[in-house]
Amino acid sequence: MSDAAQRLLSENLGSVVLVKLRGNKLLRGKLKSFDQHLNIVLEDADEISSNETKKLGTVIIRGENVILVSPAEKG
Amino acid sequence: MSDAAQRLLSENLGSVVLVKLRGNKLLRGKLKSFDQHLNIVLEDADEISSNETKKLGTVIIRGENVILVSPAEKG
Amino acid sequence: MSDAAQRLLSENLGSVVLVKLRGNKLLRGKLKSFDQHLNIVLEDADEISSNETKKLGTVIIRGENVILVSPAEKG
Amino acid sequence: MSDAAQRLLSENLGSVVLVKLRGNKLLRGKLKSFDQHLNIVLEDADEISSNETKKLGTVIIRGENVILVSPAEKG
Amino acid sequence: MSDAAQRLLSENLGSVVLVKLRGNKLLRGKLKSFDQHLNIVLEDADEISSNETKKLGTVIIRGENVILVSPAEKG
Amino acid sequence: MSDAAQRLLSENLGSVVLVKLRGNKLLRGKLKSFDQHLNIVLEDADEISSNETKKLGTVIIRGENVILVSPAEKG
Amino acid sequence: MSDAAQRLLSENLGSVVLVKLRGNKLLRGKLKSFDQHLNIVLEDADEISSNETKKLGTVIIRGENVILVSPAEKG
Repeated sequence: MSDAAQRLLSENLGSVVLVKLRGNKLLRGKLKSFDQHLNIVLEDADEISSNETKKLGTVIIRGENVILVSPAEKG
Repeated sequence: MSDAAQRLLSENLGSVVLVKLRGNKLLRGKLKSFDQHLNIVLEDADEISSNETKKLGTVIIRGENVILVSPAEKG
Repeated sequence: MSDAAQRLLSENLGSVVLVKLRGNKLLRGKLKSFDQHLNIVLEDADEISSNETKKLGTVIIRGENVILVSPAEKG
Repeated sequence: MSDAAQRLLSENLGSVVLVKLRGNKLLRGKLKSFDQHLNIVLEDADEISSNETKKLGTVIIRGENVILVSPAEKG
Repeated sequence: MSDAAQRLLSENLGSVVLVKLRGNKLLRGKLKSFDQHLNIVLEDADEISSNETKKLGTVIIRGENVILVSPAEKG
Repeated sequence: MSDAAQRLLSENLGSVVLVKLRGNKLLRGKLKSFDQHLNIVLEDADEISSNETKKLGTVIIRGENVILVSPAEKG
Repeated sequence: MSDAAQRLLSENLGSVVLVKLRGNKLLRGKLKSFDQHLNIVLEDADEISSNETKKLGTVIIRGENVILVSPAEKG
């Protein structure tokens, strides 16, 4: 990860992020931790699909499946 | 894995976790062991699909196929 | 592999295991050997699909294709 | 990355680029940072598909999913 | 490869083996050589599909595509 | 890359090449630079599909997605 | 590559070989060079599909996409 990516994730620890995974999966949750491989821990995570939202609670995501991470807009 | 991910899994040794695998497979079982590549051993594991649950017993899961791991909510 | 995974496989040398491979393939056979990459040798192996069982005899399985290994329940 | 690739990306820091990802996804945004694995941070990013544009804001893209990067034509 | 896998292949040098590749391809031929990545050379190889057998002659197979290797039963 | 591959690409710097990518994509453009992983920079690149040609301008292609590179025939 | 694979390819330098790629692509051309990753340069290459043959000229093939290489039968 570039320094900018690392700084961006660090600034968002504790905030809500969107995580897009391979296979068209989208998760949203509070960023609890990450490492340089984009292994990620989310809290209060939901899996969002076009027609429903499924509560997952805490999830450990394997970085290899991550396509992108995006801080949720702060309204 | 980040320290937080490792701690989270360690805290859930002996507890029920959900493991989502590539190819839309979902397993649920008691977390017996794991390593830093997310190779996982589950006991009393079930494979859960939309219309059935298949008993698998003890399973050794290759980390490379793991998308995410999530501690089952404790009711 | 975690120590627990290694121990579990060692205990099942000579016993029947199920091996799930990518591409929805399922093999069942006597575990002859394995290494830390989950490269596996099965004896008297069958390939099991929903509507038939095909005898394969001895097979050398490339670990990279293994999703999970599960000791067959001992009745 | 070749020196030419690196130079090209450096020259486009702060400018709008197109990023094509596996799975036929196309993003457009301001190039904030990149590293040699093509891990990329975009600002004001949109996901563009044939029939709609979705605002994503800031995104961290995992290089492994990048197919190509192209500076947007300056009109 | 485990020692058992290596021994098994060594014993079958010059004998007919089946090689299953990703993408549901099946080859049968005389095992000429192999290395520890399961790169394989077959002689007098055929590609076998459900409705035809195609002669390939000598083939060099890239190990990364190999799912399993199985000595053909000796009648 | 073999020396012959490297020499061939070097001879074609500044000339038009075809680049076939995974997912049946075909690009054509002037070869600006390359490295030993087949990371490639093309200028004046077009994406060619069976029924249209889309102008992309300058593109940085991630080598991992390249299937083959071919110098365009010089008429 | 095993020594036998390397010897086989060396013996076929300048001769016509078939190269099967992932995604069911088949190329035929004169083997100009190769390296130990099966990166290959073919001259006078054709892409062969069930209903047509397309002239490609000289091609540099990325080894990672190669499934198998087979010397064309000498008539």
